[in-house]
Amino acid sequence: MKIAVVNGPNLNLLGVREPEIYGHDTLAHIEVKIRKAIRESEVELQFHQSNSEGEIIDLLHSLRYDWEADSIVINPGSYSHYSYAIRDAISAIEIPVVEVHISNTQAREEFRHHSVTAGACVGKIEGLGWVGYVLAILYLSS
Amino acid sequence: MKIAVVNGPNLNLLGVREPEIYGHDTLAHIEVKIRKAIRESEVELQFHQSNSEGEIIDLLHSLRYDWEADSIVINPGSYSHYSYAIRDAISAIEIPVVEVHISNTQAREEFRHHSVTAGACVGKIEGLGWVGYVLAILYLSS
Amino acid sequence: MKIAVVNGPNLNLLGVREPEIYGHDTLAHIEVKIRKAIRESEVELQFHQSNSEGEIIDLLHSLRYDWEADSIVINPGSYSHYSYAIRDAISAIEIPVVEVHISNTQAREEFRHHSVTAGACVGKIEGLGWVGYVLAILYLSS
Amino acid sequence: MKIAVVNGPNLNLLGVREPEIYGHDTLAHIEVKIRKAIRESEVELQFHQSNSEGEIIDLLHSLRYDWEADSIVINPGSYSHYSYAIRDAISAIEIPVVEVHISNTQAREEFRHHSVTAGACVGKIEGLGWVGYVLAILYLSS
Amino acid sequence: MKIAVVNGPNLNLLGVREPEIYGHDTLAHIEVKIRKAIRESEVELQFHQSNSEGEIIDLLHSLRYDWEADSIVINPGSYSHYSYAIRDAISAIEIPVVEVHISNTQAREEFRHHSVTAGACVGKIEGLGWVGYVLAILYLSS
Amino acid sequence: MKIAVVNGPNLNLLGVREPEIYGHDTLAHIEVKIRKAIRESEVELQFHQSNSEGEIIDLLHSLRYDWEADSIVINPGSYSHYSYAIRDAISAIEIPVVEVHISNTQAREEFRHHSVTAGACVGKIEGLGWVGYVLAILYLSS
Amino acid sequence: MKIAVVNGPNLNLLGVREPEIYGHDTLAHIEVKIRKAIRESEVELQFHQSNSEGEIIDLLHSLRYDWEADSIVINPGSYSHYSYAIRDAISAIEIPVVEVHISNTQAREEFRHHSVTAGACVGKIEGLGWVGYVLAILYLSS
Amino acid sequence: MKIAVVNGPNLNLLGVREPEIYGHDTLAHIEVKIRKAIRESEVELQFHQSNSEGEIIDLLHSLRYDWEADSIVINPGSYSHYSYAIRDAISAIEIPVVEVHISNTQAREEFRHHSVTAGACVGKIEGLGWVGYVLAILYLSS
Amino acid sequence: MKIAVVNGPNLNLLGVREPEIYGHDTLAHIEVKIRKAIRESEVELQFHQSNSEGEIIDLLHSLRYDWEADSIVINPGSYSHYSYAIRDAISAIEIPVVEVHISNTQAREEFRHHSVTAGACVGKIEGLGWVGYVLAILYLSS
Amino acid sequence: MKIAVVNGPNLNLLGVREPEIYGHDTLAHIEVKIRKAIRESEVELQFHQSNSEGEIIDLLHSLRYDWEADSIVINPGSYSHYSYAIRDAISAIEIPVVEVHISNTQAREEFRHHSVTAGACVGKIEGLGWVGYVLAILYLSS
Amino acid sequence: MKIAVVNGPNLNLLGVREPEIYGHDTLAHIEVKIRKAIRESEVELQFHQSNSEGEIIDLLHSLRYDWEADSIVINPGSYSHYSYAIRDAISAIEIPVVEVHISNTQAREEFRHHSVTAGACVGKIEGLGWVGYVLAILYLSS
Amino acid sequence: MKIAVVNGPNLNLLGVREPEIYGHDTLAHIEVKIRKAIRESEVELQFHQSNSEGEIIDLLHSLRYDWEADSIVINPGSYSHYSYAIRDAISAIEIPVVEVHISNTQAREEFRHHSVTAGACVGKIEGLGWVGYVLAILYLSS
Repeated sequence: MKIAVVNGPNLNLLGVREPEIYGHDTLAHIEVKIRKAIRESEVELQFHQSNSEGEIIDLLHSLRYDWEADSIVINPGSYSHYSYAIRDAISAIEIPVVEVHISNTQAREEFRHHSVTAGACVGKIEGLGWVGYVLAILYLSS
Repeated sequence: MKIAVVNGPNLNLLGVREPEIYGHDTLAHIEVKIRKAIRESEVELQFHQSNSEGEIIDLLHSLRYDWEADSIVINPGSYSHYSYAIRDAISAIEIPVVEVHISNTQAREEFRHHSVTAGACVGKIEGLGWVGYVLAILYLSS
Repeated sequence: MKIAVVNGPNLNLLGVREPEIYGHDTLAHIEVKIRKAIRESEVELQFHQSNSEGEIIDLLHSLRYDWEADSIVINPGSYSHYSYAIRDAISAIEIPVVEVHISNTQAREEFRHHSVTAGACVGKIEGLGWVGYVLAILYLSS
Repeated sequence: MKIAVVNGPNLNLLGVREPEIYGHDTLAHIEVKIRKAIRESEVELQFHQSNSEGEIIDLLHSLRYDWEADSIVINPGSYSHYSYAIRDAISAIEIPVVEVHISNTQAREEFRHHSVTAGACVGKIEGLGWVGYVLAILYLSS
Repeated sequence: MKIAVVNGPNLNLLGVREPEIYGHDTLAHIEVKIRKAIRESEVELQFHQSNSEGEIIDLLHSLRYDWEADSIVINPGSYSHYSYAIRDAISAIEIPVVEVHISNTQAREEFRHHSVTAGACVGKIEGLGWVGYVLAILYLSS
Repeated sequence: MKIAVVNGPNLNLLGVREPEIYGHDTLAHIEVKIRKAIRESEVELQFHQSNSEGEIIDLLHSLRYDWEADSIVINPGSYSHYSYAIRDAISAIEIPVVEVHISNTQAREEFRHHSVTAGACVGKIEGLGWVGYVLAILYLSS
Repeated sequence: MKIAVVNGPNLNLLGVREPEIYGHDTLAHIEVKIRKAIRESEVELQFHQSNSEGEIIDLLHSLRYDWEADSIVINPGSYSHYSYAIRDAISAIEIPVVEVHISNTQAREEFRHHSVTAGACVGKIEGLGWVGYVLAILYLSS
Repeated sequence: MKIAVVNGPNLNLLGVREPEIYGHDTLAHIEVKIRKAIRESEVELQFHQSNSEGEIIDLLHSLRYDWEADSIVINPGSYSHYSYAIRDAISAIEIPVVEVHISNTQAREEFRHHSVTAGACVGKIEGLGWVGYVLAILYLSS
Repeated sequence: MKIAVVNGPNLNLLGVREPEIYGHDTLAHIEVKIRKAIRESEVELQFHQSNSEGEIIDLLHSLRYDWEADSIVINPGSYSHYSYAIRDAISAIEIPVVEVHISNTQAREEFRHHSVTAGACVGKIEGLGWVGYVLAILYLSS
Repeated sequence: MKIAVVNGPNLNLLGVREPEIYGHDTLAHIEVKIRKAIRESEVELQFHQSNSEGEIIDLLHSLRYDWEADSIVINPGSYSHYSYAIRDAISAIEIPVVEVHISNTQAREEFRHHSVTAGACVGKIEGLGWVGYVLAILYLSS
Repeated sequence: MKIAVVNGPNLNLLGVREPEIYGHDTLAHIEVKIRKAIRESEVELQFHQSNSEGEIIDLLHSLRYDWEADSIVINPGSYSHYSYAIRDAISAIEIPVVEVHISNTQAREEFRHHSVTAGACVGKIEGLGWVGYVLAILYLSS
Repeated sequence: MKIAVVNGPNLNLLGVREPEIYGHDTLAHIEVKIRKAIRESEVELQFHQSNSEGEIIDLLHSLRYDWEADSIVINPGSYSHYSYAIRDAISAIEIPVVEVHISNTQAREEFRHHSVTAGACVGKIEGLGWVGYVLAILYLSS
């Protein structure tokens, strides 16, 4: 089973950026932790990050049609709050996508309370730190 | 480790009510599945359901101060969308609470897009069916 | 044919409370009038009142699954304006429900103009006093 | 006792237009059914339909001052949602008016959830099909 | 100098309708009073009333292009609050139009606080009863 | 193939009214230009204009059921922005309707940015002057 | 009969400020014109201007209780759009007050479309230039 | 003179819950302090707390009609922000009710800025800690 | 202990202005009543009134830094609803301020439901007439 | 005459993505159809697609200043609903641009009802499938 | 070259009021610093502060017409957020005005995010402390 | 000291695009002017422009962590109005950033009045043309 993890804008700064909100792990550490957590499953994992809305859309298309992913975990970062283009990309690829946020968006600024991308996903996990990625993969691979 | 699962209004009709949205499992089936899924962990589990906002508040208080729960999984049902009283109860008990919804609220009617309770929780899992409860317990017990 | 009438908060004070809006009949008088008005039909009638949102939900479930009502007339009182939990209960029981209000909510304060429960019902009758209950029963039993 | 029934825009297409919403009866059939249902009452009935807001206002004035109606049943169709001019006409004629809708406006598009005319009426019946007209007449003639 | 007075919906009921708001004069009385008040000016006056939005638009066009009015006084009644079509007609005829209301719309229901037609007029006079018409004519003929 | 063109309020003043927005052609000139542009197609064309919302609804009904139009081009003028009655008429007649506006409503006043009628049409063409009518006919006859 | 004219902020710059909107007359010129226009009436006129909200309130109180004005014409300038304190002062003095604006506020920026003071007045005249003051005095002295 | 104090949801956790907002006194301590502060008045005091909206409504009815309270002090907790049912209960019992909040709701989250219950009360005291209850009783017993 | 009472716009008209809302006592009477009510406390009281927003700000600064008030009771009148400048003055002087309103603002017009100044105060008392001032002083001096 | 067609996000998946909305033609098929439809005109056509907002802006600049396009047809996909940057690019290049959408955005989700880019274009064609592109080119080349 | 600096409400408390937001310099210190920073330019500087909206308007008029200022730097304090009267004064004097705020209003409470005065100015500088005044003067004198 | 200037979408067209708003200088001219204006300071300056949101985010990250900028001046163009991703990037890099706009956004279309990026910056300068960049650099290097 092929599952891709797609991280959006500013997540490349994880571990550096506002650690009181996002924690001290870098994205690379998180990838290691995730791979370790799911090492006994039969999931083939790809891990991506981009700050560009257009690249994320290209990536979603390519993961589905080129790499033939079975499902995707996406952390769209703050693109969640306005990128109808990513929403449409999620709808267009017609495989299960789970949205993950490291922090609890509902406990932060008002503008983070609304996700335009989540409505096109199967579901959402937020506020559970890097563990959220693992739980999403567990769900998608179960 | 003690974890309680609190289910809100109309969840007692699971398996009967609108199965195209909520699936065919009754709440009792789901409890069985959850207990099975976490049987190897050291979690002591309580499972509750109430249609009454006041009872849910009483229950949250009691789980914290009488039963001394370490953390709670709550599916507030549609109380999510307006019960500031439950929100305050979650804040008041000061232990980690994870909100779970069986369906993806962001893909349903507009009034379900906003959760007033989630901001007082650690995080939220939604749209992943009964598996959401298991993932929340995994997180809280990890 | 089994029809239940469910009255919500403060309707136990009918005849006492603001008679210029709600009239001088008590709920007991109204029950008598209704039973008299439909005495020639074959309707078996139950008459309930509760001030508690949770009890109303329990009652709706029970009327449907225990008493096996064919249909229900509900006056949710001011729960109409915010109780998504009662709305979900109405949807969940999947029998015809007609919403009744004694006064014309559209001619009163702004906050009474919107009903969140009516969208889950078959229809609504309002402003026609206690006669509204009779008309709803006539419709449901026709 | 003189009661008029006034039907607004597009109701002349009943039975033809979107029958899954409005049913298969034409307006003429409905008139027959209503007359039959109330044949034992002493109501003298007039039945009107117009697609024109101005004609409906003229009609309301004329029914009150020329024909000397005791009361009126009005289905303003979608003029309900914005015709403050019809609202003012209802207020101006100072006889009881009951608003009727065949479908349940609260269960349809957002723009149908608000009625600007209902606030000037005695009450409203909606979602009960053609029977709604009969119930309104029963109320007004009781 | 040719000035027309155009009265909108329900103003034919003046003197009959809600006299505590609109006074006891009929529209015919008001016309007499106006003609008397301006009898020494050189204004040629036409006086119209229609309940129909379409007729009011036709009338505005015709007054401008057929009768060759120099200016117009309009009381659009409650069409003020939503008739963008009348607004466009006022803009289209490109002669000075003054909007008049008998009552003070700002002291009544919320929905009367906004006029979509006034923005296309030269100005507005409201709350001054039938005298408002006279003042508007005085202005337009000065 | 029978196609009707229905023009709404104030379009009879085309060529006279605000030519910097709407151009210098009268509606008659435009009809001639359109007939010329499509003279080689097999379209039988009717051309209508009315300032009355009710007449436009009557016309839509009649074109469909009396004249048996295959499709309709409608320029509802500013009725676009609030006439739910015309919207319902378009839905009711169940043939393809294309909405046309001569000017680009999105580049004008805020109140012109929203069309309540377009949602019931097949599509919309705006801002392309009289050519918009021709393009709509080309589409409907292709 | 005693009538006062109260002018609000920036009206001391009339004739200097944005003459394309407000005209070329200074406030002193306008006072002369008004006195001339009403010279045959028995009105005793006071003419005031202040840029200060507090002074305007003091003035309204004083005109009523010290000078014993019979009525007042007020041009609150842009205080119209937010000064609930002036609104309360108008209500508190309980004599007829007419609001006047030189320009048509409905044809200018959005923030000028709403007047919080007009609801406490007898009525409003706007868009008719300095003549508006004369018309208001004519009304109040008639 | 009989006065009841009714405390709403989560107030049973006072002294435990978020002491930086609500202080360190438990509800029992506060009751003692209040009784001490008013010990010289002739007030007969009852003290209640419930987390249930329905129970609070029942209690209000019962205090008025069974215990025959002269007036009531209510701290509806966060039910203030949405419970139209409690608002209606306050209106229905027709005795003076004063709303009290321990913290200053206007200085906290946006959702706490609006009270739907206060409009049915005589007045409101907030932000003055437990002293607010004493002041309300002083007012009601004066 | 030094406490100042600051009254805002139109409160100088108390006893004269709308007595059905504000009562029959003048501000001087109220001052006498307050001084009498607190005569046994050790409070040194100053009593001020101004209709000017700027003077109220000057006064707040001066009471704090010149007179060295310990705390302040303010009735900002309708400046409550929009004066962010007074709000900032309250924050800036950093001593306890309690907001008082004679009437219950929540039971009056919509625009009175929101107070922008209360968020900078310790708390608010409203609807309790002149007694509200006494209670605020009692609180501040306790 | 040089005309460019610029397609925005997810349009590369045409024919694959949600064919019940967008049809079964791929973008390549559509390009062929368009070229065929306009083969007799003297239009030199370029055809582009990008998922990236920044690339679309670069492209618009380049088409105007490098390729020297006379006009452009743009289908901004869901960037229509929020890309003020693309709107500014359209304004900046100062050649005629027509916006095209394959589906009727007014008949879909609420968030698709508003286009921020259309106001900077000459006009818009929507809901007419691939034919919309042809019609836009016909208009721009006429 | 004559430039005036006008400071609005509560800025006289600079250095005392909330220094974590506004810094420790008093307004007098800031004036000294500014004069020093621009001592080599040929700017003749006036420095004003008032807590009164009316005085600020008087001042703006006087600076323009009496002192004949070439341009003005204004820090309207919180009058920025609602004083349309100051906005109109800025427009009326028709010389360049630059708005300055010491703190970054966009990073503070929601009500500070909107400036109604800035739209009438040439531009705005905010968040740069007292240096903002210097930069504004540099711009205006360059 | 290292300072970078980052220009967003469409600013590469400066001097070409809408010169009545943005002036006649190209971005290259502006860079020359800025370098000249600050030639005596010890600022090491980098100058960038990109139309891509993703590239701007990459650039901000890189300037901070690769080039080790001390501070940044950003003109996000219209990304200001919706790019929460750029806002997060500004927060994430944790060095002082000043937002600059060439035109006064508050005096232009409504959608330009709100900046989502400014709240994450130290401050903002707008409406002062290219001089705004110089002032921002002066501030950051002072």
